[in-house]
Amino acid sequence: MLDNKLKEQNNLTIIEDKPEVWKVEPSTTAKNCRNFIRDIVDNLDLKPNPEKPVIALSLGDPTIYGNLTPSEETIQAIVSILEEGSCNGYAPSVGYENARAAVAEYLSHDGVNINTKDVILCSGCSSSLEHCITVLADGVKNHNILIPRPGFPIYRTLAEAIGVSVRYYNLIPENNWEADLHHLESQIDQNTTAIVLNNPSNPCGSVFSEDHLRNILEIAYRYKIPIIADEIYERLVFSGEKFVSTASLNSGVPILICGGLAKRFLVPGWRLGWIVVYDEIGAFENIRNALICLSQRTIGSNTLIQGALPSILQNTPQSFHDELINTLSKHAQLAYEGLQNAKGLSPFMPQGTMYMIVEIQMQKFPLFHSGLEFAQKMMEEESVFCLPGDCFAISGFMRIVLTIPEELLQEACVRIAEFCNRHYVN
Amino acid sequence: MLDNKLKEQNNLTIIEDKPEVWKVEPSTTAKNCRNFIRDIVDNLDLKPNPEKPVIALSLGDPTIYGNLTPSEETIQAIVSILEEGSCNGYAPSVGYENARAAVAEYLSHDGVNINTKDVILCSGCSSSLEHCITVLADGVKNHNILIPRPGFPIYRTLAEAIGVSVRYYNLIPENNWEADLHHLESQIDQNTTAIVLNNPSNPCGSVFSEDHLRNILEIAYRYKIPIIADEIYERLVFSGEKFVSTASLNSGVPILICGGLAKRFLVPGWRLGWIVVYDEIGAFENIRNALICLSQRTIGSNTLIQGALPSILQNTPQSFHDELINTLSKHAQLAYEGLQNAKGLSPFMPQGTMYMIVEIQMQKFPLFHSGLEFAQKMMEEESVFCLPGDCFAISGFMRIVLTIPEELLQEACVRIAEFCNRHYVN
Repeated sequence: MLDNKLKEQNNLTIIEDKPEVWKVEPSTTAKNCRNFIRDIVDNLDLKPNPEKPVIALSLGDPTIYGNLTPSEETIQAIVSILEEGSCNGYAPSVGYENARAAVAEYLSHDGVNINTKDVILCSGCSSSLEHCITVLADGVKNHNILIPRPGFPIYRTLAEAIGVSVRYYNLIPENNWEADLHHLESQIDQNTTAIVLNNPSNPCGSVFSEDHLRNILEIAYRYKIPIIADEIYERLVFSGEKFVSTASLNSGVPILICGGLAKRFLVPGWRLGWIVVYDEIGAFENIRNALICLSQRTIGSNTLIQGALPSILQNTPQSFHDELINTLSKHAQLAYEGLQNAKGLSPFMPQGTMYMIVEIQMQKFPLFHSGLEFAQKMMEEESVFCLPGDCFAISGFMRIVLTIPEELLQEACVRIAEFCNRHYVN
Repeated sequence: MLDNKLKEQNNLTIIEDKPEVWKVEPSTTAKNCRNFIRDIVDNLDLKPNPEKPVIALSLGDPTIYGNLTPSEETIQAIVSILEEGSCNGYAPSVGYENARAAVAEYLSHDGVNINTKDVILCSGCSSSLEHCITVLADGVKNHNILIPRPGFPIYRTLAEAIGVSVRYYNLIPENNWEADLHHLESQIDQNTTAIVLNNPSNPCGSVFSEDHLRNILEIAYRYKIPIIADEIYERLVFSGEKFVSTASLNSGVPILICGGLAKRFLVPGWRLGWIVVYDEIGAFENIRNALICLSQRTIGSNTLIQGALPSILQNTPQSFHDELINTLSKHAQLAYEGLQNAKGLSPFMPQGTMYMIVEIQMQKFPLFHSGLEFAQKMMEEESVFCLPGDCFAISGFMRIVLTIPEELLQEACVRIAEFCNRHYVN
């Protein structure tokens, strides 16, 4: 046993009573780190009807049913890199230069001009978002960030884990889920250090118009608050709609754009995300350097995917993208029509993404006290499960995933309609 | 412009004066996130001698010269997974069940028994370390962790970024770089929440004996402080040496073991790391759950590598591992002998890993005021670059990487010897 003299000499605290038992408690960060979807779903009593096979309309993973697969070019790009054998070592923590250049080129369209030095590769888009929230918002300084409601809960998870609070700004259902600008502005205070935009939107399936984006950016400019633009569903928009990147508007607002391969290239498990530091006015020089530092903590994303990235981005044929859009669009149409037959539901036709949001006229279902109970009972009776809106911070809605095979989607809609019509009370 | 009435109604802060200029500053976390190796190396004026090709003995990446490559089995395992097409979607955030089971089996040897549920897959061993430090140490509560000196600077980077301070415990050169137990114990106070062990050691190349490990664990047990065991160099030990995992000692101390494919399988860029929650006494139940939550922030590691992991771990032949050890051991011998010819250097023969640490008798080189200057001048005159000990928090030493091709290593040693003999003053 060490005597206390040495400790005194070294100006160290003397532990008079050593603990007798182990008390190992997680840190504040770990305790504050919550998965809101799991918190909700785990509390549901999900027992499917044993007579009917389960159809999960809940999982935002386009690959699970095997009907949507990455392009042959994407797969071959990895095989080539493996055979070459040159991408097994450490990459720079921000990614290989040529991979970053490929992302810059891929995103430079419609008047957007992105440089290689603006691109930082990350281990998936979640990691991109984590870095962006961490660099802009400070738990120690009581910062807050604005996030959309309804919206994907990862923003809240990432912020609250580091002691940053979130403030919701409302999206307006009847305005194509545009942001309520008045409400958004009212949420800003001196401690607001970022506004998160998610366009196209999960769970709404909505796509912001150029005008609407300009209106949001104008507020950001007025209050000098940077934007974190979650554009993981970029260009996943249906015929007649147009994806407008926040970067294309020359708004003068510094923007961190997050994206990745996950959705448009159908490889979410590969964990290839990126951040684009889009900064027309030189406000982000310190932020750029700080992001580079943050990326050095865990040294970026898998090098095989990085090595293949130029080839994936350049060689995946347009027909692959078109086909995916066509499938999603067809499924959206199908689900929309199918749910028209369900009393008490109001589906919102999506403009893009892989999701449809559906309003449940709860007052027409007096048997169910909440959207959670609605979802639980639908599973129990029809073996169909959708994520309740509560997972996205909005009650009385549910989200339907459009990536599942057509016949399953049709069958699901039939069952949902039967369920609704059975329980609907006029 | 929003009037202030709405803000008042909503109990929100009224911003009377909106900022006129952009002031976007990185968060405390981002500011505190430093790469200590880069901080040092970037401040050196590294100009190689144009007459001599550069030999970098500085980079801890075994793959850069192409002489060390992953096994054919490793490559084929990924190709098979790509062809199968079943590993492109999201994995559970802690990893595929079968991949976790494979890691548990791989690490269950020499009396260690690890279960699938104890394994969490991460995006590289850096990420494993980040999770472990984050879960055990709390910046808000002024916690500190103990880390080895000399040691790899990532522990400090990860801790300080989240406001956790580090305290060094000394390793004793003349005792095969064993920890100074007295010093280690003297560094513990009420706020110490973890002791980081790195065995085998980067940069020392040392391998702890079972007795020494028991002595450290005994202190940890006495003060009830959990261990973070960085065992990324597990089993990378030379003939006659034995790697003893902290988990094999039945010490009753709860341990988080970090490891991964990077070094022993020669694929550091693939970012496949793991955490093993080793807990004989049930002290880590909350920690285990918290680690699972933390892993949900960024959803783990690349699924292709995860899918291939069982095959990589089971099918890589013993001859591959033996060959790597033989090469490293031969290179260690070669460098050791080569540097015997250099006046004023005292190389330490490593017992394992990919590194050799070398003491520089600075008083014999009065021309150089520091090990940094020594390294800089050696680059300038001989185009050989080694990381100065300062990168590992110890002055008057340098680290040599043993993975480069034999003829380059020999040439480097010749040049180092010439440099030393030229500047040595008796």
